[in-house]
Amino acid sequence: VTHVRVGMVGAGQLARMTYEAAGPLAIPMRLLAAREDDSAAKIATDVLIGPPDAESALRRLAEGVDVVTFDHELVDLGILERLEADGHTLRPSARTLGVATDKRAQRDVLGGAGVAIAPSADVDSAEDVRAVASEHGWPLVVKAVRGGYDGRGVWTVGSEDDAVAVMEDAAQAGLRLFAEPLLDIERELAVIVASGPSGQRVVYPPVETIQVEGICHEVLAPARVSRELADEAVRLGELIARTVGSVGILAIELFVVDGRLLLNELAARPHNSGHLTIEAAVTSQFENHLRGVLDMTLGDPSLIAPVAAMANIIGTPDTGDPHHRLADALAVRGAHIHLYDKEPRPGRKIGHVTVVGGGLGDVRERARSAAQILAGGPMGGPR
Amino acid sequence: VTHVRVGMVGAGQLARMTYEAAGPLAIPMRLLAAREDDSAAKIATDVLIGPPDAESALRRLAEGVDVVTFDHELVDLGILERLEADGHTLRPSARTLGVATDKRAQRDVLGGAGVAIAPSADVDSAEDVRAVASEHGWPLVVKAVRGGYDGRGVWTVGSEDDAVAVMEDAAQAGLRLFAEPLLDIERELAVIVASGPSGQRVVYPPVETIQVEGICHEVLAPARVSRELADEAVRLGELIARTVGSVGILAIELFVVDGRLLLNELAARPHNSGHLTIEAAVTSQFENHLRGVLDMTLGDPSLIAPVAAMANIIGTPDTGDPHHRLADALAVRGAHIHLYDKEPRPGRKIGHVTVVGGGLGDVRERARSAAQILAGGPMGGPR
Repeated sequence: VTHVRVGMVGAGQLARMTYEAAGPLAIPMRLLAAREDDSAAKIATDVLIGPPDAESALRRLAEGVDVVTFDHELVDLGILERLEADGHTLRPSARTLGVATDKRAQRDVLGGAGVAIAPSADVDSAEDVRAVASEHGWPLVVKAVRGGYDGRGVWTVGSEDDAVAVMEDAAQAGLRLFAEPLLDIERELAVIVASGPSGQRVVYPPVETIQVEGICHEVLAPARVSRELADEAVRLGELIARTVGSVGILAIELFVVDGRLLLNELAARPHNSGHLTIEAAVTSQFENHLRGVLDMTLGDPSLIAPVAAMANIIGTPDTGDPHHRLADALAVRGAHIHLYDKEPRPGRKIGHVTVVGGGLGDVRERARSAAQILAGGPMGGPR
Repeated sequence: VTHVRVGMVGAGQLARMTYEAAGPLAIPMRLLAAREDDSAAKIATDVLIGPPDAESALRRLAEGVDVVTFDHELVDLGILERLEADGHTLRPSARTLGVATDKRAQRDVLGGAGVAIAPSADVDSAEDVRAVASEHGWPLVVKAVRGGYDGRGVWTVGSEDDAVAVMEDAAQAGLRLFAEPLLDIERELAVIVASGPSGQRVVYPPVETIQVEGICHEVLAPARVSRELADEAVRLGELIARTVGSVGILAIELFVVDGRLLLNELAARPHNSGHLTIEAAVTSQFENHLRGVLDMTLGDPSLIAPVAAMANIIGTPDTGDPHHRLADALAVRGAHIHLYDKEPRPGRKIGHVTVVGGGLGDVRERARSAAQILAGGPMGGPR
């Protein structure tokens, strides 16, 4: 492997942190950014500007690099398949992205491999939704098959009237939908798996994610679950990564329902639930993503301390420029601050804070506190 | 402190790693690089090209930033004093740099403050050297007052004939020199102190440096000395940083001679002996350098694990491109690799490897092993 150049589709914060991991290894990276002021485009020296779903832009990226990888999944699978057919190396592959970006395909492929998933059904109309409700009762959750994230593409439907309204909106947006019963979720976990192209794999200790209105607010490591459940999550992580043929990072979100693990969704890229690995693990998810896509030995995913907590910095109407409060946030002991240099719109993740230590209550409080200072106000969520 | 822009004079590996620390905090940095292909210039987006000792170049840098700091000491103090007189903020100040870059001034200023230093005398001629030898005996060490590093500017002089040869060379190079007895050095330690402009200060646990022919090959943390000696090194670090008015990182190199600490030299910038703080300390020397020069609360200098070892990757005639062997080096468990993207000339530091862990023998062996792979051959030095 000689001076292999990595191309990344997308230039958001995941690309930014991958780029930051590439620097010390002097691995050359080229980014395909939709806009010049994208988070990672601001710090990278080798950036193409173009839409990530345009064949011409993707071809320009692929032709100048040795391996193409992804910061996000807003890509056209048909184009990716053509690039592969033309001999370009995509890691993950179009096939893996096809499963990871299609919640119905996830259910078919992984359900078939023995992964537990909530019961669900395709819905095309309010009529279809009513039929699902007649089996499981109201409320239901209606989800977009593709493209939902950070609470978008997910609707809780409490009645037939709700169903009519949601299905009208969805029809206008041209979304494929499915419905599942509203689950009584005890906890949400995430497992980060790093894979190489020849089956090499490491699994990070499962973390717990704290979601508020579908947006991840905090991540705690390790997850507060029994050893048996944590082991089961690791086993599922390996099974799923193998089944979808993952290369690089695969993030697997799981629900704990009735003490059992159910698959929520996948992301075939570095993931918010793995940001704390930058300081809390021997090797970060970002470095392991690079190692995986470059077919180098994967690094140790172990935690370096008993516990760690990450809090996202989420824009509020009062956020303004978080730089004004950087000095105050750095006064929080042990706060590792990551600002993404993004316009702080309400609800938008503009950075995160990680604290590593010995006691969960303490590190969580410090991470929240620094994140709140930078957000310019309380971000809500459970304590 | 609002969007303060940091300007750094120099674009070597210290600037590169400072720049890497600025990224997650989204602190804007502008570099003054002597050449476009300097280590840090290759990864930075905001670079001025110009000689670091030219007033026009330094003024251009200072006028576009809020605070000027330094990657190296090859600067003209007169120019820096004029910049300060014109209202530019230099951290460290010209005064601090004046002491740190002049070994005779260090001896005068710090000796007066009660810091133990080897006896020494200015020497202008072979005659002067002979006079020092008549007091202390041969061999002596002759050192340049300014500009020596990595074994340059230091000569061991064993006889009158040696003295004549060294003084002739030095006269041609126009160097001011001094002589001191050859010390029987038991160990070499370094203390990294981070300071703010208002007297805020944190001291990293003293480390041990392993030097081969004047070049640092390895750094071990903590230093293998008694608790009392380590405490004394910390006390000296604080005293020296206060005495020279340090802001940002000050590195203090110490000799252990007859069980006592003697000052060797200072560097008023991030330092090779602090590279392991990137992974081994809560807050790295590079982030604390930025926090110090920006007058933000300094971060925790504690180690995150019992021990850490760093090995420099030093070019050999066989090094070639270390990227060819990156995959092999990453296979060494826990190896944190930093490549500086510098032309691998023999004797040149082109990167380093840090390993953090529980047992010194083990982490040292792994750091050396990965560094050796990347150097393309054995680098020598004691085991």
